[in-house]
This record gives sequence, C-alpha cells and structure tokens, in this order.
Amino acid sequence: MTKDKTPLKSIDIKDYLKSVKALTDRLLNRYLPAEDMFPSTLHKAMRYSVLAGGKRIRPILAYSSYQYCDGNVDGEDLPIHFAMAALEMVHTYSLIHDDLPCMDDDDLRRGMPTCHKKFGEAAAVLAGDALHDVAFNLLASTGSNKVVVELAKAIGTFGMIGGQMADVEAEGKNITREDIINIHCRKTGALLSSSVRIGAMLAEADKKTMEKLSTYGEKVGLAFQIIDDILDIEGDQNLLGKNVGSDSENQKATYPKAVGIEVAKSDAHTLINEAVSVFDEFDDNILIHLAQYIAQRNK
Amino acid sequence: MTKDKTPLKSIDIKDYLKSVKALTDRLLNRYLPAEDMFPSTLHKAMRYSVLAGGKRIRPILAYSSYQYCDGNVDGEDLPIHFAMAALEMVHTYSLIHDDLPCMDDDDLRRGMPTCHKKFGEAAAVLAGDALHDVAFNLLASTGSNKVVVELAKAIGTFGMIGGQMADVEAEGKNITREDIINIHCRKTGALLSSSVRIGAMLAEADKKTMEKLSTYGEKVGLAFQIIDDILDIEGDQNLLGKNVGSDSENQKATYPKAVGIEVAKSDAHTLINEAVSVFDEFDDNILIHLAQYIAQRNK
Repeated sequence: MTKDKTPLKSIDIKDYLKSVKALTDRLLNRYLPAEDMFPSTLHKAMRYSVLAGGKRIRPILAYSSYQYCDGNVDGEDLPIHFAMAALEMVHTYSLIHDDLPCMDDDDLRRGMPTCHKKFGEAAAVLAGDALHDVAFNLLASTGSNKVVVELAKAIGTFGMIGGQMADVEAEGKNITREDIINIHCRKTGALLSSSVRIGAMLAEADKKTMEKLSTYGEKVGLAFQIIDDILDIEGDQNLLGKNVGSDSENQKATYPKAVGIEVAKSDAHTLINEAVSVFDEFDDNILIHLAQYIAQRNK
Repeated sequence: MTKDKTPLKSIDIKDYLKSVKALTDRLLNRYLPAEDMFPSTLHKAMRYSVLAGGKRIRPILAYSSYQYCDGNVDGEDLPIHFAMAALEMVHTYSLIHDDLPCMDDDDLRRGMPTCHKKFGEAAAVLAGDALHDVAFNLLASTGSNKVVVELAKAIGTFGMIGGQMADVEAEGKNITREDIINIHCRKTGALLSSSVRIGAMLAEADKKTMEKLSTYGEKVGLAFQIIDDILDIEGDQNLLGKNVGSDSENQKATYPKAVGIEVAKSDAHTLINEAVSVFDEFDDNILIHLAQYIAQRNK
C-alpha cells in the first residue's frame, strides 16, 4: 500500500475530529440501553458516564485506520460502527472502575462527578461491568471473531487490566523508565493500539498494512499516555475537566516521575515521529494528522 | 428428537457430576493465566477465586446439554471446553463483584475468605474484570459469534447484571412474587439457562430442540435460585461453605420472603417437574437426572 490515502488537502483535522466525534456520540446514544428501561438506575449510570463527553480518541483511531484501509463507510449500523461504540464503552468501563474509592478514588471526571459519586459504588461497579458486556455484544455483532479476540487480549491481564494492577502496585514506589513503559503500554497503549488494529481488521487490511498500523498504534498509544502524564503536571484544569496534580498527589507512577519532564516531552516527540514514519515520505493521510494532533493536544 | 438420549441405566448421577466437575477443574486450570506471570497478584486472585471449588453447575449444564444434542466430546480444547471454562469464569467474576463491601459485603465464599478479604478491594475489582474478559476471549475462540452474543445477553443489563442491580435496590423492601421472579430469572436464571443453550448451540441443535432446552433451562434456573434461598434458611453452613442466614441479615429480597417457605418449596418442586416434562414421558437422559439432583441438593 504505497499510494496516498485519504488525502487531507481540503480537510481540516479539527473538522475531521469533530465529525467523527459527533458520529461516535450518535452511535453511543443508539447502542446504549434506554434510561427508561429496567433497571433504570443502571442504565442511567451507564449513559451518564459514556455520554459525559470525552475525546473519543479510540473510536477516532479505529475509524481513521478503517478509512485508511479503504473500509466502506456508507450505511447504518456497519461493523465499524459497532466497534467504535464498543471501544469507547470499554474505555469508559475502565475509567469508572479506575475512579472507585478502592482504586484511584477520583471525584471528578470530564468535569463532572465520577460515576460512584453520582450513583453510589454498587451502581458504579455494575455500570462498568455492564459496559464491558455491551462492548463484547457489539463486537460479536460485527460478525468477526477475530476482533473479539483482539479486544479481549488488549484489555485483559496482559493488556489494560494488567496495566491497571501494575499501576496500583507501583504507587509510592521508585520506578524505572522500563517499568513505566511496561505499565503505560499495557494500561493505555494496548487499547489505543488495538483500536487501530480493529479498524484495519474490519476493513480487511493485508498483512503488511496490519504490521505497519500495529507499529503506528503502539507508538501513538505510548505517546498519548506520556502526554497525559505531562498534562497532569502542566495542563489547564478547565480544559482537561479533571484535577491537575492528582498523579503526584496519589504518588502514581508516571513517565515524568521516572525520567523527568523534559525527557518525557522529548520521548513523546520521538514516538510520534516514529509512528508517522511508518508511512511513506510523501504520504499525507488522516493517521499522520491524527498523530500530530495527539502530540499537540492540551486536553 | 424423540429417541432416548445419553441413557443413564448404568451411570450414577453423582459419578457423572464428579467426572464433569473434574473435567471443568482441569479446563479452568489450563485456561487461567499462570500465577508466576506478570501481574502475579492479579493472576493469583483470579486463580484463587475460580479454583476455590464450587459446584460447577453452569459448565455441567452446558456439557450435559451438549451431550444430549450429540455433540462430539472426543479431543482436547474443543469449543465446548472453552465454553465450559468461560461460563464458570463469568460466574466467578459475578461472585467476586457481588461480595465486595459496596455490594453484599460478604467475608466468606466456598468456605474461604472472599477475594477482596484475601487480596484487597482493588485486586478483587480487577480480578473480576479480568475473568469477565478471559471468558469472552474463550467464547470467541469457539469460532461461534452466536455464543458470544448469547452470553453477553444473558449476563448484561437485561440478564445477570440487571438482576444484581435490582437485587441491591430491593434490599429492605417488601416485594411480591412477581418482583422476586423477575430478579431471580435475571440474576441467576439467565446465566444457567444460557449455559444450557450454549451447550446446545455448540452441538448445532435444531430449532425445536433449542426451544425445548430453553424452557428446561429457564425452569431449572429459577428453581435453582429458589432452592438457594431455601438453603440460606434451612441449610447446613458447613456443607454450603458460606454463612447461613445472610440473606435475612442483609434484608435481601428472597423467594421465601415473598411467598413463605412452604410455597417456595412447592414452587421449586413444580418448576423442576415442568423442566423435566419438556422431555418425552419414557425418556431417561442426563438433563432429567440433573434437574432432579438440583431439586434435592443440600449445598
């Protein structure tokens, strides 16, 4: 695959992100159970947390990768639509459980009270469980077993959940660059990278493209979390919608804590460059612009 | 399907249960991540809870149903094996979350400290999440999307998780027979019934057999939970491996609370009879014996 993909000559990356985010919000609204259906509290808690906003970066990565691989985007309830909603639901489930008092004990998320603050702990545990479940239902509905297995691996003990456990265990400890790369690649990187891969799988990408996009996804995934850590130190609380400085307060293992903030910035920059360099020199595609946007994000 | 299935003339139901339980334990041991793999705490917590024992009734129902439908049982790592392990993992995940302080706050399960008592709350939340995930990975590995969707529906907000939410919300309230049937059919019945259906699906049962077995599963599923409620009043704590009287202490909604213990016993009996009556009058198969065993269980 050497030709130019999804050229952006006349597309602004912000417009593109806005439109895919709007599509994601519509899909989430459609695939989440209605609030007036029994048990209402649970459905309210699920919808509250998922529809509270957020960057929708995982569905955007999946959709961009799918488009890069020439996947068909015409029609309603396409497999890629199921996958986009599933990825965001899985992400939200992990945030709900991560925010619980026994985990990070966070009160604020996306500028609003966290799920357990609003609905109580029992409902928050179950809302997370339920979103996890709906996500697998949606992914299985794509008709592709491969993507179900892909997601299960990305968010299991060798991926996201394993990273969360390692993250909890690393609190208050001295950690090396190797440790934090291991935690970040699992906790955040695995799902971000998997989003790129799932998009490509649903577009039936060839093996070579899959490999290229896997590398892209891994690099962007790690960079994303390093930048998250940096924003927790230097970011604007109003833009972020969550408390700044909470990592330091909770003695979390972060990339800047391991290597210092300047090296963290430089490593994030290098990773973005490496992600972009999987594409040909004169290529100009949406995934390149997306990586550059992630590098410059302030929320 | 009118002919006699899996005749038990020379098979003792207890021997049968023992052998399928042993098979299930072997499968669980094989498909759970090893304790010495990173993150070790999480894998220890998962294995601790899953391998603590238990009746393995869901894998047994799936296997019996699969055998009833002439599914092939020769070989290693068959789709039915993946499904059996997945069903028990999903059940264990629900118990771990159900036992949390913010839910039922139970200290004892299967005669041992509950997962959060042993490993702490954060590890317990994540161990439940991880088992939920491994289960879907295993089910997708059967190659059948249908069984993934079947399980997701059974354990989602219109099934198990919805039942758990309704159960939490019903604490301390007066409830009718209709309410408790609604809670029990979701919280316990849906997964038990789905176990029967998944076994039949993997054996490629015809539509008529699926309908028959669905009815069987629903009846047995509800009867199982009614008997569970009765055992919480009249059972032997040593045999059960959990505290007797905890439902009453926690002001839980139970079947005997709604209708009285005598009516509860009679209703359970009727349900078992109805379950068995889906089969022909002179039929003698493992599912009949299993239903009768469930009716008489004391643990």
